[in-house]
Amino acid sequence: MTDAGTRADTDFLGGTWPSSGPPDPPLEAVRAAVARALAEDLGPLGDLTALLVPADDVGRARVVSRADGVLAGRLCALETFSGVDPTLVVDWRIPDGGWLAPGSVVAEVSGPMRSILTAERTALNFLCHLSGIATLARHFVDAVATANPATRVLDTRKTTPGLRVLEKAAVRAGGAWNHRASLSDAVLVKDNHLGRLGIAEAVASARRSWPGAMVEVECDRPEQVSEAVEAGASAVLLDNMTPSLVSECVALVRARSAPGTVLVEASGGITLANAPAYAAAGADLISVGAITHSAPILDLGLDLVED
Amino acid sequence: MTDAGTRADTDFLGGTWPSSGPPDPPLEAVRAAVARALAEDLGPLGDLTALLVPADDVGRARVVSRADGVLAGRLCALETFSGVDPTLVVDWRIPDGGWLAPGSVVAEVSGPMRSILTAERTALNFLCHLSGIATLARHFVDAVATANPATRVLDTRKTTPGLRVLEKAAVRAGGAWNHRASLSDAVLVKDNHLGRLGIAEAVASARRSWPGAMVEVECDRPEQVSEAVEAGASAVLLDNMTPSLVSECVALVRARSAPGTVLVEASGGITLANAPAYAAAGADLISVGAITHSAPILDLGLDLVED
Amino acid sequence: MTDAGTRADTDFLGGTWPSSGPPDPPLEAVRAAVARALAEDLGPLGDLTALLVPADDVGRARVVSRADGVLAGRLCALETFSGVDPTLVVDWRIPDGGWLAPGSVVAEVSGPMRSILTAERTALNFLCHLSGIATLARHFVDAVATANPATRVLDTRKTTPGLRVLEKAAVRAGGAWNHRASLSDAVLVKDNHLGRLGIAEAVASARRSWPGAMVEVECDRPEQVSEAVEAGASAVLLDNMTPSLVSECVALVRARSAPGTVLVEASGGITLANAPAYAAAGADLISVGAITHSAPILDLGLDLVED
Amino acid sequence: MTDAGTRADTDFLGGTWPSSGPPDPPLEAVRAAVARALAEDLGPLGDLTALLVPADDVGRARVVSRADGVLAGRLCALETFSGVDPTLVVDWRIPDGGWLAPGSVVAEVSGPMRSILTAERTALNFLCHLSGIATLARHFVDAVATANPATRVLDTRKTTPGLRVLEKAAVRAGGAWNHRASLSDAVLVKDNHLGRLGIAEAVASARRSWPGAMVEVECDRPEQVSEAVEAGASAVLLDNMTPSLVSECVALVRARSAPGTVLVEASGGITLANAPAYAAAGADLISVGAITHSAPILDLGLDLVED
Amino acid sequence: MTDAGTRADTDFLGGTWPSSGPPDPPLEAVRAAVARALAEDLGPLGDLTALLVPADDVGRARVVSRADGVLAGRLCALETFSGVDPTLVVDWRIPDGGWLAPGSVVAEVSGPMRSILTAERTALNFLCHLSGIATLARHFVDAVATANPATRVLDTRKTTPGLRVLEKAAVRAGGAWNHRASLSDAVLVKDNHLGRLGIAEAVASARRSWPGAMVEVECDRPEQVSEAVEAGASAVLLDNMTPSLVSECVALVRARSAPGTVLVEASGGITLANAPAYAAAGADLISVGAITHSAPILDLGLDLVED
Amino acid sequence: MTDAGTRADTDFLGGTWPSSGPPDPPLEAVRAAVARALAEDLGPLGDLTALLVPADDVGRARVVSRADGVLAGRLCALETFSGVDPTLVVDWRIPDGGWLAPGSVVAEVSGPMRSILTAERTALNFLCHLSGIATLARHFVDAVATANPATRVLDTRKTTPGLRVLEKAAVRAGGAWNHRASLSDAVLVKDNHLGRLGIAEAVASARRSWPGAMVEVECDRPEQVSEAVEAGASAVLLDNMTPSLVSECVALVRARSAPGTVLVEASGGITLANAPAYAAAGADLISVGAITHSAPILDLGLDLVED
Repeated sequence: MTDAGTRADTDFLGGTWPSSGPPDPPLEAVRAAVARALAEDLGPLGDLTALLVPADDVGRARVVSRADGVLAGRLCALETFSGVDPTLVVDWRIPDGGWLAPGSVVAEVSGPMRSILTAERTALNFLCHLSGIATLARHFVDAVATANPATRVLDTRKTTPGLRVLEKAAVRAGGAWNHRASLSDAVLVKDNHLGRLGIAEAVASARRSWPGAMVEVECDRPEQVSEAVEAGASAVLLDNMTPSLVSECVALVRARSAPGTVLVEASGGITLANAPAYAAAGADLISVGAITHSAPILDLGLDLVED
Repeated sequence: MTDAGTRADTDFLGGTWPSSGPPDPPLEAVRAAVARALAEDLGPLGDLTALLVPADDVGRARVVSRADGVLAGRLCALETFSGVDPTLVVDWRIPDGGWLAPGSVVAEVSGPMRSILTAERTALNFLCHLSGIATLARHFVDAVATANPATRVLDTRKTTPGLRVLEKAAVRAGGAWNHRASLSDAVLVKDNHLGRLGIAEAVASARRSWPGAMVEVECDRPEQVSEAVEAGASAVLLDNMTPSLVSECVALVRARSAPGTVLVEASGGITLANAPAYAAAGADLISVGAITHSAPILDLGLDLVED
Repeated sequence: MTDAGTRADTDFLGGTWPSSGPPDPPLEAVRAAVARALAEDLGPLGDLTALLVPADDVGRARVVSRADGVLAGRLCALETFSGVDPTLVVDWRIPDGGWLAPGSVVAEVSGPMRSILTAERTALNFLCHLSGIATLARHFVDAVATANPATRVLDTRKTTPGLRVLEKAAVRAGGAWNHRASLSDAVLVKDNHLGRLGIAEAVASARRSWPGAMVEVECDRPEQVSEAVEAGASAVLLDNMTPSLVSECVALVRARSAPGTVLVEASGGITLANAPAYAAAGADLISVGAITHSAPILDLGLDLVED
Repeated sequence: MTDAGTRADTDFLGGTWPSSGPPDPPLEAVRAAVARALAEDLGPLGDLTALLVPADDVGRARVVSRADGVLAGRLCALETFSGVDPTLVVDWRIPDGGWLAPGSVVAEVSGPMRSILTAERTALNFLCHLSGIATLARHFVDAVATANPATRVLDTRKTTPGLRVLEKAAVRAGGAWNHRASLSDAVLVKDNHLGRLGIAEAVASARRSWPGAMVEVECDRPEQVSEAVEAGASAVLLDNMTPSLVSECVALVRARSAPGTVLVEASGGITLANAPAYAAAGADLISVGAITHSAPILDLGLDLVED
Repeated sequence: MTDAGTRADTDFLGGTWPSSGPPDPPLEAVRAAVARALAEDLGPLGDLTALLVPADDVGRARVVSRADGVLAGRLCALETFSGVDPTLVVDWRIPDGGWLAPGSVVAEVSGPMRSILTAERTALNFLCHLSGIATLARHFVDAVATANPATRVLDTRKTTPGLRVLEKAAVRAGGAWNHRASLSDAVLVKDNHLGRLGIAEAVASARRSWPGAMVEVECDRPEQVSEAVEAGASAVLLDNMTPSLVSECVALVRARSAPGTVLVEASGGITLANAPAYAAAGADLISVGAITHSAPILDLGLDLVED
Repeated sequence: MTDAGTRADTDFLGGTWPSSGPPDPPLEAVRAAVARALAEDLGPLGDLTALLVPADDVGRARVVSRADGVLAGRLCALETFSGVDPTLVVDWRIPDGGWLAPGSVVAEVSGPMRSILTAERTALNFLCHLSGIATLARHFVDAVATANPATRVLDTRKTTPGLRVLEKAAVRAGGAWNHRASLSDAVLVKDNHLGRLGIAEAVASARRSWPGAMVEVECDRPEQVSEAVEAGASAVLLDNMTPSLVSECVALVRARSAPGTVLVEASGGITLANAPAYAAAGADLISVGAITHSAPILDLGLDLVED
């Protein structure tokens, strides 16, 4: 067990992402998401209960972790506190991507007690949801790292509607990487796109239409893998294959392409339990929808500081 | 095992919500959420891969369940299909709240294949996320029903930021009920609100300030329960108590109030395993944050129909 | 006659709302309303006339009341001045809810004269409209207070479309209270909802569907009042009854319920002239649509300060 | 007394505005205002009470006037009904600008009862507010018409924040006309704009800067009127003058300008009682802030039709 | 050739617009346009490449002109830098309307290098597009000034969709003037509006319907010009006439109206080459769609400052 | 010269993009852009002049080209007509990408004349601006095609702020292709990103951080080209090189990489005149900012159809 925040600085962040850590989500997206969340939680009358607290009560509170995990959502929480009350002062102590243990103090907020109590739930909803994603991402990263340090874990487009930008940033905070962010980012040829078109024609047409875009081909059988590599695909997506079949396909790819030119991605039905086997099979990338669509929250809370 | 969709009509929906089922979310909220989700998934260039499919290809596809669970998100999926292409025709077959088994056909979409493929992921992201919530809600409802049919399961404000309106509708589709939708809906007095104020003064002040609003008091100890009931609270929230302590508090409430006038809510650390014990202890309401903050998705997919 | 601002501090605000006064509207709603109002008033080219004033002219102006009344809209005016020009400095002198007499100086604004003149109308439109509502609310509060200090004045959902959040805050500034803020806040059973359903079934169904929500029943006849109380309604709405009929219904309610458990609300055709009679009849609540839908403005103006 | 709707067609609309009546507000503005109003009134959960009505209940209801006045807001009401439920069918019977008497049937709505009841308040809030404005506008138009048929009544920029587009359309429906819609529409030189600048220089500068824009000068004294006319102003605004002073200023203007080239506008403190005197004094235009800032609503309601 | 920025201060700005220069666009419009542009350019993941720059690298960069022209877009660029990173400090050196030569330093930005590089393209896109418009406007102004200093150059409604407010401000920065900003600003009667209506009736109807609005009549033939002047039009628009025909029409107008009361506008097919001839023909106004719809950008770039 | 619309179908569209032509922009983006443009052009009062046309006048009008060029913007124009008046019927006759000659009838609109006239300018502003871009794109495509049919023309991120999605679709309509749509789409390493980092490290870091993203390196000298290819870049951007230097760099790339694996892009200072030389030099891609930032409009107009 490491101290809160320490592991992040010395181990993870320096190891894979550049030393200053993965990039934050764009500010504009943070602002829009927080404005929506605050409107939603304050409702038309504001916080009915806050009225019980004298308007001039001033205090401090700490955002504290109640579990082990990885932090994400810092910008959202900061924007929430300032959106409720610009006079709140926040001393943020652990960066996104930092490791949390029960009791880790993530941030300290000081100012009018009414405002702190009103902002509490929205700030925590962001932090808990996004840190839950970062934490599950990290578990997959760790599971894969021991089996094959060259394998990287990816997210998918299976994100919560309206929150993709923030969730993809949380995935990065967890030490994993982002697959395409939208249908406009890369070509991913699936069975349904092929129809009467062969893989070779599909790849050629995609390359011609979208110069510079990655062209990946989803394959169910090894023959398709060979066909895709011959066609010049940038990557093959091995869907729902066993690790041993993945291993066979990796060999096919390596035999037909220069090193590093065609990525092999395994996807479908991958769990923390079987991820190491897929990594050991030599996949360059393992993509896991569950990281964004089924991560339970990481439990964080707000504790008042008694003076 | 019942047929898909059947159980919903004859068993659940008729039993608790009025026979026509729980209400849909407001259309305006659905439209806004879908517009955001489509902008997010289509990106600036639209679906690069769809170009491989001839523009005049027309076909059919079915939204099919791959697991047991409860459906939610119908309006979102309909709005997604028409948002991508108003010429798509959707034949929806199972209402929100309906029970799904693997293979249940939820809807059939027909029209241009390009549009169907482009809309697929966004429609499924809504359905899978919201049905996941409905399903977990139903599991809690079922767990509680056998132990105490009078106990109702509630959601909380621990929802995914920006999606509260849709998630609360999914909770209703699952057969559970909604706690306050925002800080402006009801008064919920917690320790942090009390300060130098006693419970009696807090309840009186809240009643005076917000006529008609429910005034609930969070209690950690039985003495507070008695105090809250004497003060005229509408409900007491028993936080993180054991079932036997809940049972003791229920007795205190029943002894001090007319039947049905003060609701007892149990909350904090409630799981599918211990929920029956809390119900058996006599709680009127059991609120569970996990229903909205940690439900895994329900797996649904889109299958092309070969003619 | 009291001095401007004084009555607010010593009499009204301390008497009913907690000493720090009724809560402001949520900031997010203020920002959105002001952005819309500024876009509307500045138009595509901005203030054509301001160009006549040299760009480097700096000055001061005062927001001054021209009549007796209650102030509301402070946050809107502040946001308007900073929205037109962040360098304007505003010294605000009277809080929302404060009493104004002709000549009362509400605020002093200093900075570029062009910006002050450009912001003038939008800031005054907010202040005059919202203070008009607060003032009419106060007149009803005063009218009722002498007849029955236990009776409270409420607003309704008959608000100006798009301004409900701000108008409800103005009602609070006037010393009155808020009825439900939207259709989602409480159940209010009217004739049209009953159809073949009796009152008892309606109340039971509402209670079951929406735990914790106030369930109020609109009654045209005393028999319905008894029925509603027996059914467990939280409140009865006596619609368009004479004061003497209200008095009869109050007696029915008191005889059938524990003190403070069922609220009696009088509504429909209530004016400043007859409000005292309704209060004297024992109504707990008197709701008045005119407060928000027909209040004339309170006249405030902007006076330049000559140095 | 004429029949409802008749007077509008034969008398008012044919007399002043082109026979097809004054123009509607732009659709885009209507859509945005209705979307905001619906979000506001439906809240996060929708209409809790509507659930009491069986989902398959179908019925009819009529929008009926309860008072004498002029209708406005038709497009807003139509958009509200379709925004709540696109399957509602509305048979609209009286155009904006039509005269209403108690009992006049403005429209009949048919479809699901739940939807009709849910849409009721928002539709009525628009109709009552905007018809109130149209009605007060008409009272001023009528008061002025007998004293001087050449005098026209204008609104001002003293509108409810965020609703200017709709309120200006309601003014037109009432038979009055619109003053500038924003600060960007015309130059209106007031004392505060002059500083060290004389009227002649101000008018010349405004003419040069904004070719084609109306340049109006606010005057407190007859000497300023002469100065403004000499300077080439398009109009003079006589602020808070007595009718006899207005009469004197009209003579000054007529003596110094070709017919119809300089408009004389009276403003400030104009009421239904003194408006005829201002018209008789020869003012071309009389502008009245109260039309938009202090009009009480026109009472309209929704009556279910029993079959 | 003058020094950068100098000509603006001493020559242009003092000569025509008041000495402090033409007015900026409303702040609200700037904020909305920049938020959209940033969302568009940052995309869902932000600037992938910026990650290569260490997070703690701090530096300076200069916005530098690479060509001769007129600056516009200052507020947009400032808002862009602060929208990407509020810690960026910008030292702005040349006002909108200032003259630029190759090498002119418009502004210096200092702060985190990552943020500077990320903001670069969006800030430049605004500056280059709007300065391109200002520059073309200035070329027309200069071309006309020598031929007839009393002739003013106007823009039209042929602007880039969604950018009209900013483009009209750029036109002003270029020393030209704005024609009506929207269909709601002035009446412009064209052939298609006349139908069975004669010019006299059209002008009278327009004057009656929209008091205070400019009423302009588009004329293809001199007879129409006379008719429009007799009818009391504020201006005539001579569409696609030769300079000599314009000259004839000017004479007609001058003979039939008091000086300065009827403006003559030439429009259609006007280029830098023939604009002097139109000015010499005596047109008061020359409107040129190309200024906003076909101006090439002015080339500005961002240069890092090596320390 | 070919007939209008014909060349598009038989020659261009079939030759490069799949036969059904390049993809439309996402509907959501079209709707948002049109709503903004209509709000902008209708203003607060709507079309003042349209009032002159009787409300029941019905007619037809044609969108007609006045020049040679390529059409783009069809969806925007359709949305504009239906946004102004949903009863307008549009018969669209030439697809985006179709070739226009003077007189080509692009579409015919029928319905209320008022609505047609009101929608005219906004619809044309979209069509003229976007077709101007499509036309310039086509000129570059044609210029390059004869010199080297394998060379493709690309746009850049130098687009009009807020219109990138629509402009990139217009580029596709013109037969050219899209470079990255945002900073989040691909890695493009420039001098400013390198600092103390060598090209090899930069490419490796980018590859590691953003799996699947294209990694392109901007090169000023041939040595950098070799370095980038060795480092595994997906593409090299040759900035401001002469055609002969481009030719040398192409040879370097071909010698060091498998066919089709590393793209060579020429950029900077490319005009219609020198583009063939760059194509002949063997560049795979030629990117031209002017296509989106400096294209003059294509002249289209609206002609009423006399019956």
